Amino acid sequence: MDEPTALDLPQVEPLPEATRAYFDKCHEKLGLVPNVLRAYAFDIAKLDAFAGMYNELMLGPSGLTKLEREMIAVVVSAENRCFYCLTAHGAAARALSGDPSLGEMLAMNYRAAPLPARQRAMLDFAVRMTRASAEIGEADRAALRAEAFSDRDIWDIAAVAAFFNMSNRMASAVDMRPNPEYHAQAR
Amino acid sequence: MDEPTALDLPQVEPLPEATRAYFDKCHEKLGLVPNVLRAYAFDIAKLDAFAGMYNELMLGPSGLTKLEREMIAVVVSAENRCFYCLTAHGAAARALSGDPSLGEMLAMNYRAAPLPARQRAMLDFAVRMTRASAEIGEADRAALRAEAFSDRDIWDIAAVAAFFNMSNRMASAVDMRPNPEYHAQAR
Amino acid sequence: MDEPTALDLPQVEPLPEATRAYFDKCHEKLGLVPNVLRAYAFDIAKLDAFAGMYNELMLGPSGLTKLEREMIAVVVSAENRCFYCLTAHGAAARALSGDPSLGEMLAMNYRAAPLPARQRAMLDFAVRMTRASAEIGEADRAALRAEAFSDRDIWDIAAVAAFFNMSNRMASAVDMRPNPEYHAQAR
Amino acid sequence: MDEPTALDLPQVEPLPEATRAYFDKCHEKLGLVPNVLRAYAFDIAKLDAFAGMYNELMLGPSGLTKLEREMIAVVVSAENRCFYCLTAHGAAARALSGDPSLGEMLAMNYRAAPLPARQRAMLDFAVRMTRASAEIGEADRAALRAEAFSDRDIWDIAAVAAFFNMSNRMASAVDMRPNPEYHAQAR
Amino acid sequence: MDEPTALDLPQVEPLPEATRAYFDKCHEKLGLVPNVLRAYAFDIAKLDAFAGMYNELMLGPSGLTKLEREMIAVVVSAENRCFYCLTAHGAAARALSGDPSLGEMLAMNYRAAPLPARQRAMLDFAVRMTRASAEIGEADRAALRAEAFSDRDIWDIAAVAAFFNMSNRMASAVDMRPNPEYHAQAR
Amino acid sequence: MDEPTALDLPQVEPLPEATRAYFDKCHEKLGLVPNVLRAYAFDIAKLDAFAGMYNELMLGPSGLTKLEREMIAVVVSAENRCFYCLTAHGAAARALSGDPSLGEMLAMNYRAAPLPARQRAMLDFAVRMTRASAEIGEADRAALRAEAFSDRDIWDIAAVAAFFNMSNRMASAVDMRPNPEYHAQAR
Repeated sequence: MDEPTALDLPQVEPLPEATRAYFDKCHEKLGLVPNVLRAYAFDIAKLDAFAGMYNELMLGPSGLTKLEREMIAVVVSAENRCFYCLTAHGAAARALSGDPSLGEMLAMNYRAAPLPARQRAMLDFAVRMTRASAEIGEADRAALRAEAFSDRDIWDIAAVAAFFNMSNRMASAVDMRPNPEYHAQAR
Repeated sequence: MDEPTALDLPQVEPLPEATRAYFDKCHEKLGLVPNVLRAYAFDIAKLDAFAGMYNELMLGPSGLTKLEREMIAVVVSAENRCFYCLTAHGAAARALSGDPSLGEMLAMNYRAAPLPARQRAMLDFAVRMTRASAEIGEADRAALRAEAFSDRDIWDIAAVAAFFNMSNRMASAVDMRPNPEYHAQAR
Repeated sequence: MDEPTALDLPQVEPLPEATRAYFDKCHEKLGLVPNVLRAYAFDIAKLDAFAGMYNELMLGPSGLTKLEREMIAVVVSAENRCFYCLTAHGAAARALSGDPSLGEMLAMNYRAAPLPARQRAMLDFAVRMTRASAEIGEADRAALRAEAFSDRDIWDIAAVAAFFNMSNRMASAVDMRPNPEYHAQAR
Repeated sequence: MDEPTALDLPQVEPLPEATRAYFDKCHEKLGLVPNVLRAYAFDIAKLDAFAGMYNELMLGPSGLTKLEREMIAVVVSAENRCFYCLTAHGAAARALSGDPSLGEMLAMNYRAAPLPARQRAMLDFAVRMTRASAEIGEADRAALRAEAFSDRDIWDIAAVAAFFNMSNRMASAVDMRPNPEYHAQAR
Repeated sequence: MDEPTALDLPQVEPLPEATRAYFDKCHEKLGLVPNVLRAYAFDIAKLDAFAGMYNELMLGPSGLTKLEREMIAVVVSAENRCFYCLTAHGAAARALSGDPSLGEMLAMNYRAAPLPARQRAMLDFAVRMTRASAEIGEADRAALRAEAFSDRDIWDIAAVAAFFNMSNRMASAVDMRPNPEYHAQAR
Repeated sequence: MDEPTALDLPQVEPLPEATRAYFDKCHEKLGLVPNVLRAYAFDIAKLDAFAGMYNELMLGPSGLTKLEREMIAVVVSAENRCFYCLTAHGAAARALSGDPSLGEMLAMNYRAAPLPARQRAMLDFAVRMTRASAEIGEADRAALRAEAFSDRDIWDIAAVAAFFNMSNRMASAVDMRPNPEYHAQAR
């Protein structure tokens, strides 16, 4: 199997029982073990910390739908031009929306997509955080509140956008390579 | 006590036993409970995921010293001009180095600091990840290997730099305010 | 049929004979009349000038293969984040290369693609022209010559990169919408 | 005679009859054959395609005056810092306006020129297309409509601005050198 | 004593009487001779010209308080990331305000500081001058007048912001090193 | 006579004797009193400080010729797109060089000018100071030393580049308008 990154950091062998079970569950649900998990598997403490944060954020309870969280993931990854995340989360956005061309639009230029004003505001905030977080102020949060996002929703928008600013950079720094299966998914 | 962010997200009351113990330990070791933890405490699952990742990254085993990890934290936060993180991690860098002016230099412009070439390469990589992660390539990783960083070290440099690109954006997005005690620490 | 742009500029009716024949030929070869042609068809002189330049450049004789010209088109359009051109020329790059994931890589971040050094140099030059043309100098041309590009090839690389810097901006300025059929082509 | 670019691409010899006639007409009207035409003359198909598009755009029927089209040319070329186009079209703007200092202002910083609001809006749109075309939206087109530009005018503004984003990059990529006569014209 | 810059430009020896008196006065009032003055002292005409402009600007009569002028100095220096000026003028801002954390905020990200609208407008203007002076227009000056700044005040804001755009660049270009005493002042 | 800036700051009346003599001398030598001096003349202390620094820098003894200092002035002003300084110092560069097209090249894009390597290095340093002074390091100074600039020359290059980063911003901030006579000078 191909290496998941450009670094020589082999997976722990054998994987602990819990990790093996987690990877099996991924395989069952997604048809693959995402390379990002294989990449972290050289150190189980790091893998668990990353997966714990990811799962809480993207799959846990939130006022944002899972699709909306994936939309933020794709738009932030497009801004940072992260090949890994655009591939993996583009596939997720296509699958969750049932609209392959929406996934493409978000990856290419979300401003071209015919989105409701509420989602546009959400994505504009995520892009502003990505480009110029030091300039964010009360007016930016007010623009989200004007679209009926609660303070809890604002936290979640910010947390997803922030997380992918981490993940994009991690993936690019180590040349993380997406599983080839993503390309054909949900087209 | 002042609110830790601009969002109205009150802390869970009462805190679970484990959280209370964690906050007590912070108080004992640092003289304060960092506002970032108070900010996340509106949702214990989020707090635990964040704290888990942070502690593994900044305090867990690594080829990088704790000071080196704090140096990356400060330099990335300076690039993103994050008031919260510059205040909190500037204090940590001053304390761990025992050299207050080094902390200042890193926060102002790390290129002005008389650093060994190895640390300069580490910080240059972190800044490049922050500014233009999509352009990182093998030559950038080679520059770290040339300074005797192992692949595992490269992962850790990347992981710390990536983490603060998340944390900086989260802090700025919600207007997170540092504990006032940091300003006077280790001057 | 949907409007090809956000401007109210209806197509000449009836189309001149030669234009009708050209559109029929497009339909036969591509299965569609590209919306960019429909957009220009409010003024046949403009349509002919645009199509004349496009066809000479992308289909005429050149030391660059048609795929290489499409690669430049996609990479420049990615830099400018042009939804129309990424969609239409992404499809062409997938079709001509027979490698759908290559098309995606070029659209997302060409630096992640495992390209021969010669093609990487070609695309680096195109990106430099897109970002900072005023800074191009003899050293940039020398880098192409070092990869065995002739002066005529350099002209063609420059001409394709320059053309899409025009086309991307035109498409974004009038909100040009790609034919929906492109999305599924050559996946 | 000096070479028109840094590439070794000699002019077709002898020039076809039609090309010779065109160059003669240039000489008669302008006192020179613009070096951009001499540069393209290594391949008559390319020359004809370029000249066809240029002439339609800059000299054909339009709601914009020829001076307004030259103003866009100069302002876009200033943004891209294209020495060739600033020299050639700066001279044209001085000649058409009869106001040498206007030409200078446009080349240096059009915001310093005392322009009517309508022309300022036109130039602001052209600059926005040059800098950040992916961010253009309905509001930008609305700003032009508010100054009584028709949709056809908007197309023409966009087309001229887009064309010079091509031409500037082509000229810089091959180090195109303006005819020395331009410098003294219409001072 | 350490060299004040990376250039080998020794101080005139002996210093002229007037210069010696000026340096003595600095020592008396500040506890040190600022290294910027020692750096210029290789040429007394340059030192006098610089000091004359500095003193008139920062200490002369103005509608702006001395603290406000130091606030502009710090915020511009933060934008330009000038280690020398952030150190020296950060100390001055801490001393004049009697609020050490205000000095830190200005050096890190002035947008995080709880400033009156009038001072925020003043600093926004200074930052805009620093980043994009060519785009300043009447609207920017109107924003200052709306906060009750007079035209004379606007001149002074502009003059201080402009001066530190000079001083920051001079200091960085020659690697000017701040006196170590600044670090501990007014903490 | 037209106002020299957008601010309502009338000249001191009557001018002090020394100022009148200085203005008379300008008139005699240049055929005009530069508007920048008229602009500062609302406060003679400010005028004297500015003129003192300017004259020492641009006319005082230096290893750089007066033309070289004007070249730096023009190139920095082009980077900052300062209409006032490009007009005034463009005229000076044309006059001192006796080569009108050189002045144009410097104002448009100095990289297009056929300059000796030594002058190119000098201007590259000035542009780097203008764009990214915080990143300047020993390698940048070494590039100047490699072209036989002394440390004293480096100081002077830096000082002129820094000064025009001040002057450009001051001129743009107050909308300073150049004397109309400059346009026709030395063409």
